[in-house]
Amino acid sequence: MKAYTNQTKEELIELQSKLEQQYQEIKKMGLKLDMSRGKPGISQLNRVMGMMDVLDSQSDYQTEEGFDSRNYGAMDGIIEAKRLMADIMGTVPEKVVVYGNSSLSIMYDSISRCYTHGVMPGSTPWCCLEKVKWLCPAPGYDRHFAITERFGIEMIVIPMREDGPDMDQIEQLVAEDESIKGIWCVPKYSNPQGINYSDQTVKRMAALKPKAADFRIYWDNAYAVHDFDPERPTEILDILSECEKAGNPDLVYEFASTSKISFSGAGIAAMAASFANLEEIRKQLKIMTIGYDKINQLRHVRYFKNLEGIHRQMAIHAELIRPKFEAVLKILETELGDLEIGFWTKPLGGYFISFEAMEGCAKAIVAKCKEAGVTMTQAGATYPYGNDPKDTNIRIAPTFPTLEEIKKTAKLFALCVKLVSIEKILTQK
Amino acid sequence: MKAYTNQTKEELIELQSKLEQQYQEIKKMGLKLDMSRGKPGISQLNRVMGMMDVLDSQSDYQTEEGFDSRNYGAMDGIIEAKRLMADIMGTVPEKVVVYGNSSLSIMYDSISRCYTHGVMPGSTPWCCLEKVKWLCPAPGYDRHFAITERFGIEMIVIPMREDGPDMDQIEQLVAEDESIKGIWCVPKYSNPQGINYSDQTVKRMAALKPKAADFRIYWDNAYAVHDFDPERPTEILDILSECEKAGNPDLVYEFASTSKISFSGAGIAAMAASFANLEEIRKQLKIMTIGYDKINQLRHVRYFKNLEGIHRQMAIHAELIRPKFEAVLKILETELGDLEIGFWTKPLGGYFISFEAMEGCAKAIVAKCKEAGVTMTQAGATYPYGNDPKDTNIRIAPTFPTLEEIKKTAKLFALCVKLVSIEKILTQK
Repeated sequence: MKAYTNQTKEELIELQSKLEQQYQEIKKMGLKLDMSRGKPGISQLNRVMGMMDVLDSQSDYQTEEGFDSRNYGAMDGIIEAKRLMADIMGTVPEKVVVYGNSSLSIMYDSISRCYTHGVMPGSTPWCCLEKVKWLCPAPGYDRHFAITERFGIEMIVIPMREDGPDMDQIEQLVAEDESIKGIWCVPKYSNPQGINYSDQTVKRMAALKPKAADFRIYWDNAYAVHDFDPERPTEILDILSECEKAGNPDLVYEFASTSKISFSGAGIAAMAASFANLEEIRKQLKIMTIGYDKINQLRHVRYFKNLEGIHRQMAIHAELIRPKFEAVLKILETELGDLEIGFWTKPLGGYFISFEAMEGCAKAIVAKCKEAGVTMTQAGATYPYGNDPKDTNIRIAPTFPTLEEIKKTAKLFALCVKLVSIEKILTQK
Repeated sequence: MKAYTNQTKEELIELQSKLEQQYQEIKKMGLKLDMSRGKPGISQLNRVMGMMDVLDSQSDYQTEEGFDSRNYGAMDGIIEAKRLMADIMGTVPEKVVVYGNSSLSIMYDSISRCYTHGVMPGSTPWCCLEKVKWLCPAPGYDRHFAITERFGIEMIVIPMREDGPDMDQIEQLVAEDESIKGIWCVPKYSNPQGINYSDQTVKRMAALKPKAADFRIYWDNAYAVHDFDPERPTEILDILSECEKAGNPDLVYEFASTSKISFSGAGIAAMAASFANLEEIRKQLKIMTIGYDKINQLRHVRYFKNLEGIHRQMAIHAELIRPKFEAVLKILETELGDLEIGFWTKPLGGYFISFEAMEGCAKAIVAKCKEAGVTMTQAGATYPYGNDPKDTNIRIAPTFPTLEEIKKTAKLFALCVKLVSIEKILTQK
């Protein structure tokens, strides 16, 4: 099929009428599908159930260091859980605190702590500053942006390249502007594009020379082990070591969780940082908690045992997720391949495909999907303040629906892309 | 035996020498005992193990409302857990959010939220105020004071009476001073005195007319069901209803957890408040989490089922705790009963006994215990800033050690009280 822009007005009008008919028929089916959030599928959850059998009333609840995991104590996590989370992040347990069930909460707490108490001893709490700014590679993760927005932090969009965010811009901005205090990064299978930071990007990030001594990289390693092909995992350099090598040991906070390894509703989360950073973080921890859920930490360790166990689990998840991504990609290719009305990423892991529509079309496409019973991530969500300046980006989240549902959804999505694009082109002809 | 102060210098010196000999002998035993924290005993934890069998790989993980507890969602708790926690607090599930594993963390988050964003829409964030003050009934809970101290909040000591804190002072202070934004309360079996707030106290608290519209009562109902005699539980009026009746529906935040019902290391925690308050709280929750550990919430509900199940568990705990309290009280009575060198509370529930030594003696007693291998709660800890102005209060926490250990500890404690008191009296003779 010819690219839409190369078709005549008459051809397009005829096509539009056919597609509109198809759309009305699908609408009648009363679909109720959701591709909006990066939720594990039920089939994935069903394949972790063995975890629920490793601890019962007869089990030993002592940790390696002799803590009774049932009682108070071990405020920053039990050592075996630190080791497991360190392995996932590619660092050492001494640099890890295990902390609740959600890495998002750790990020919130970190920013809240810097806002109320400052990043390090002697640094000004952000609530006392006129202005705090933040670098936001975009498209990015809406929940990251929601945290910085809540604290009134001014967000600056940084374009994403094929190997990570635009490092030229970042280097220049942080060197010049002391009010820039952080940057959101998802270094592996970035949300939503599935982009991996190249070694060069990681090294440049680690070697940043920010004007603000209290600038920190928020390194959300959410998809650290989430490869579709476990035989050929993507390797990202360990940011903590790179920062050390670059003479910037305190530059980064790293986050990870098992939300998409074990259970999103009952995983464990962790943060890794330099000793100096951890000392500050522990000052807050020892006031705000007497220790997080240690039985769940123990459960995770007893089930996965080590990084190999994690990889085994991730291979199972990959078997379930990969076909869903392939189905979407195949439908997009078949339906939209030659039309030049959109392009999309083809990630090797993670939870999302990122779709770029024609300028000014994303909102209309998502609305049209919604009208036919399919919920996509809100257009704009992948940009700070929900404001996608060109209104082009749509995040596709294929993991939660079943394969059958995904096929239906992807076809409807492609149809909506066509209809909205034709309308756009026609107004320009 | 005669009261020490009625004995002659010579009598006291002779006694001192005898007691000092006893002390040296105990010291040689190389004890290593800890009565410092309110931790459940191992025997208690062993009696909750059935909870670890209610969910396994074959269980149904759907919540009543059809959420998959294994996946994301239900940000503020699953309905059945709200109901259970509401029952414990004596309120309704609609006013409850279930939230992590520690009520201390909820209190921290609440104060942090008010500090960064203000209590209600339109109220000034505390970080923007010159001065924030807090009322601290004392002796009280050291970890409460640690939170307010961390946020630079000026703490004002309020004396405790037999039926709760001094309400005359509280009424006057909050009516006059707009910078007073809150008060710490443990209404039932207060930490450390085991005092219960009378109906009159609760009603006066609920009817406060604070000058600050953003004043809140922090009602830490930590021992809501922790009666030693389950047949005769202490009943405390429901503060939320009382606030409503008094026309002050938004005046209170209530907190509770199962830390001392199920597992301190893996319980569930909750907060109860008016709808208007909850609306503010949810604004934060929806940014900071995608939901707390719902499997653990479900586990608690499946195991306890309802308030009756909770009471059954608490009767078991009471059987284990009561003898420990009785042992301490008996030893204190036998050893110190007539000596007029200290008095102590005789609580009907909770986790602590509060001891009042002669003025200026608490620190020395705790140090002397430590020297012989027994750790007590640090003297002063029960007052804001760790500063017990008369140096009299010592918190005794008899739940964690075994009965045998407790007897040894209590005897040593009594001995140290005697020695320090004699020294004090001798310097005055």
